[in-house]
Amino acid sequence: MLKEWIAEEKPQAKELKERLDAAHEKLAVLQMKIKEHKLPVVVLIEGWGAAGKGSAIGSIIRSIDPRFFKVASMAEKAEEEQRRPFLYRYFAQIPEAGKFVFLDNGWADEICELKAQGELSREEYHSRIDSIKRFERQLTDNGYLVLKFFFQISRKEQKKRLGELEEKKDTAWRVSDRDRWQNKHYDKYLEVFDRYLRDTNVAGAPWYIVDAEEKKWAQLQVLETLCSGIDIALQNESLAVPLLQNVFPLVKMPRLDEVSLDKKIGEDTYKEELKQLQSKLSALHYRLYRKKIPVIIVYEGWDAAGKGGNIKRIAEALDPRGYEVHPIASPEPHEKARHYLWRFWTRLPKTGHIAIFDRSWYGRVMVERLEGFCSTNDWQRAYNEINEFEKELSQWGAVIIKFWVQIDKDTQLERFTDRQNTPEKQWKITEEDWRNREKWDDYEVAVNEMLQKTSTTYAPWHILESVDKRYARIEALKIVIRALEEALD
Amino acid sequence: MLKEWIAEEKPQAKELKERLDAAHEKLAVLQMKIKEHKLPVVVLIEGWGAAGKGSAIGSIIRSIDPRFFKVASMAEKAEEEQRRPFLYRYFAQIPEAGKFVFLDNGWADEICELKAQGELSREEYHSRIDSIKRFERQLTDNGYLVLKFFFQISRKEQKKRLGELEEKKDTAWRVSDRDRWQNKHYDKYLEVFDRYLRDTNVAGAPWYIVDAEEKKWAQLQVLETLCSGIDIALQNESLAVPLLQNVFPLVKMPRLDEVSLDKKIGEDTYKEELKQLQSKLSALHYRLYRKKIPVIIVYEGWDAAGKGGNIKRIAEALDPRGYEVHPIASPEPHEKARHYLWRFWTRLPKTGHIAIFDRSWYGRVMVERLEGFCSTNDWQRAYNEINEFEKELSQWGAVIIKFWVQIDKDTQLERFTDRQNTPEKQWKITEEDWRNREKWDDYEVAVNEMLQKTSTTYAPWHILESVDKRYARIEALKIVIRALEEALD
Repeated sequence: MLKEWIAEEKPQAKELKERLDAAHEKLAVLQMKIKEHKLPVVVLIEGWGAAGKGSAIGSIIRSIDPRFFKVASMAEKAEEEQRRPFLYRYFAQIPEAGKFVFLDNGWADEICELKAQGELSREEYHSRIDSIKRFERQLTDNGYLVLKFFFQISRKEQKKRLGELEEKKDTAWRVSDRDRWQNKHYDKYLEVFDRYLRDTNVAGAPWYIVDAEEKKWAQLQVLETLCSGIDIALQNESLAVPLLQNVFPLVKMPRLDEVSLDKKIGEDTYKEELKQLQSKLSALHYRLYRKKIPVIIVYEGWDAAGKGGNIKRIAEALDPRGYEVHPIASPEPHEKARHYLWRFWTRLPKTGHIAIFDRSWYGRVMVERLEGFCSTNDWQRAYNEINEFEKELSQWGAVIIKFWVQIDKDTQLERFTDRQNTPEKQWKITEEDWRNREKWDDYEVAVNEMLQKTSTTYAPWHILESVDKRYARIEALKIVIRALEEALD
Repeated sequence: MLKEWIAEEKPQAKELKERLDAAHEKLAVLQMKIKEHKLPVVVLIEGWGAAGKGSAIGSIIRSIDPRFFKVASMAEKAEEEQRRPFLYRYFAQIPEAGKFVFLDNGWADEICELKAQGELSREEYHSRIDSIKRFERQLTDNGYLVLKFFFQISRKEQKKRLGELEEKKDTAWRVSDRDRWQNKHYDKYLEVFDRYLRDTNVAGAPWYIVDAEEKKWAQLQVLETLCSGIDIALQNESLAVPLLQNVFPLVKMPRLDEVSLDKKIGEDTYKEELKQLQSKLSALHYRLYRKKIPVIIVYEGWDAAGKGGNIKRIAEALDPRGYEVHPIASPEPHEKARHYLWRFWTRLPKTGHIAIFDRSWYGRVMVERLEGFCSTNDWQRAYNEINEFEKELSQWGAVIIKFWVQIDKDTQLERFTDRQNTPEKQWKITEEDWRNREKWDDYEVAVNEMLQKTSTTYAPWHILESVDKRYARIEALKIVIRALEEALD
């Protein structure tokens, strides 16, 4: 589409000024509405080197209260970021409800640069495109407004600008080798940009090509499109979103009432096996670290099922420098104001590290579903969103292990009563636990649906029988060890 | 996505039956809601030969009142259809508001077949994909629910079914050479289908892959997805749609007040030129016919500007077997119930023919805009939709000529008064003409915007100065002749 595009005629100076003033004024009004309607806005500013992206952002934000926006400059990846999935640093930057984020170069630039440099195979390119389309859809499906601008200048204009920058001492540093290379291979880049724009031009997050040959005119195009995009998004509150088919390979899971809960293990065998398995896991952890394989372990289960003790037995075997346990409670206000997966994206381990989640993103289809913290459309959509999320992690190379720690209702009652009656355990039991217990049957329906719909070949669920907690711990260790050995082979 | 997909486990017979009954019942209820909310639903049933598409449709429609749906079987293209743009026959089939259309093979099949047979170049394939994405977006943007199903069976199952059909005399005719060829080249088709599904899987019109190894189970998948899709669409009434950027190459147009209206032509010169130009046009018409080039001429202009007489001078020169004039008034109820472009798609000329539109799809951005017959979002979106429509026609090979017949306000008054005072002309003037005249200034704003935004290199506007009607007629003939000569070179 970039190749077919012809710039609109630039308005005369007087008209340009008037429209710029009007657009700035309008944006100043709209920022308050965004705040009020809790609309989060992601603005991608992409395009050629020296096309004036930075100065356009500089001009636009003049109309916005500094508390309501952030500019994220995506320069070279830090080591931290290189060791995370490629979308990590973009997901981390998404704004809170009611605020703007301007990305000075977003994800388009990263992919196009790799493609132009010949560093992505055809297959890898298509896989990245799929990831990006999913990512953008997950944002827009969850109420984000995503506006994507491409700043277009001709080869000649780019050359002229680079020359001017290089001439002056103060600005010469702004011209990188990459800029020069891009200008030299302009036609190749044009091909790559054109293809990328076509591949990712979707109705929910369309591209706008900005004629960037002149600064003020470029600013006006962005401002006016921004205002019109916000106007439309404000009309579409509480939009229901189509439920996409789960095209991920599912593993058949038993229903919870089909799980036998009679497995036991003797005290001596337990101690012996525990020691042996932990030392095996410990050795594996070092090998993972050297091979830079990231590992994600998820614990979900009934209250008092024994998650904490189970996690402890895994963690004991690990080098503290190479793992982290994330206890997941209700989201904090700044977390609640973002996409529900944001607090998990930002807690992903680095390559070679292990992250253990004590409760997780599955809250969306359990507690958030049952307590009405999200709409029906939201949690129904979440199965696919979660499978997409875990697919992203798996493509990155992560080993994903998910445990459902299972007990029966009577066992829970016993343990609750014991906690209640034992002073040093009383902190572990709250009113909320008792309230949740009353909803056992509803939870069972939700858990069964979750197990059926999110157990994929690349991130399967494992049900841990935990009436005998020792049995469950040994099982968990065995499953983790098996999964890691497979990944290391 | 087809290649990664693994079928969900089929439910047990009892559950299957219960869910089928429930889904049929639900659909029966939903059809009334669809009617009530005026939701048009397009259901594409695509997939492998012998996958059971027909019988699935047969089962689904059992729950629907026959007045509320139509099944369109897209078999071989009739000659009529071959001489129209490839989307013509699909656009022609779109349902009225409140009704279903089931397409037994839709547009996916056509493209995939051509691609598998090696009859589309890479560039042609991408161009078709772009056309299809635009088409589907134009439907969903204008309130259509588009559901796309792909019926998947294995190579082995397909072979088995084809064998069974061939064995019996009654069914042998149902197996085509194409089916056999497809089974023989299963892997190739799988590749093509997979690519197509990925390329056209958009949030507004996503794909659902149906496990079609067993009939009832396939029906259930379609029924349940259909119901859930309708549920969601019903929640999204009066949705505002993002305004896409006009990425089509625009030609600069003057504003109406910049057009001089002083051109004149003498009676004698007129007669002479008219005769000469008409005979030239006549000769060109035969050449166009032989070269099978379709021509579309659009007339828009002020009331009493002289459109009728102008069209007459063009038509006189044409062979009546090769052209048609379409006078466009307010839409009929069955037209109003469909996408606003439907009545124009269905009036497209065959290749080699000429269609003259006396008023046209530009009503959307003039009368419909000013009289509030559509929402602001609707007419703002229409500039791009119209450019896309004309792009489709131009890619098909059509010559598109658009006239704005221009007079000033005083001239209109003169002509109105003359009509009023001349008994044989009184039928030409109505109360509405006087009412429209009062809105002259509003119309002028709308016309100027239309001219700026829809004059593309492939379908430019021509302003005809028509204070002297004879001058305008000679000009129109010259412009038409020039455009046709260019196309014939």
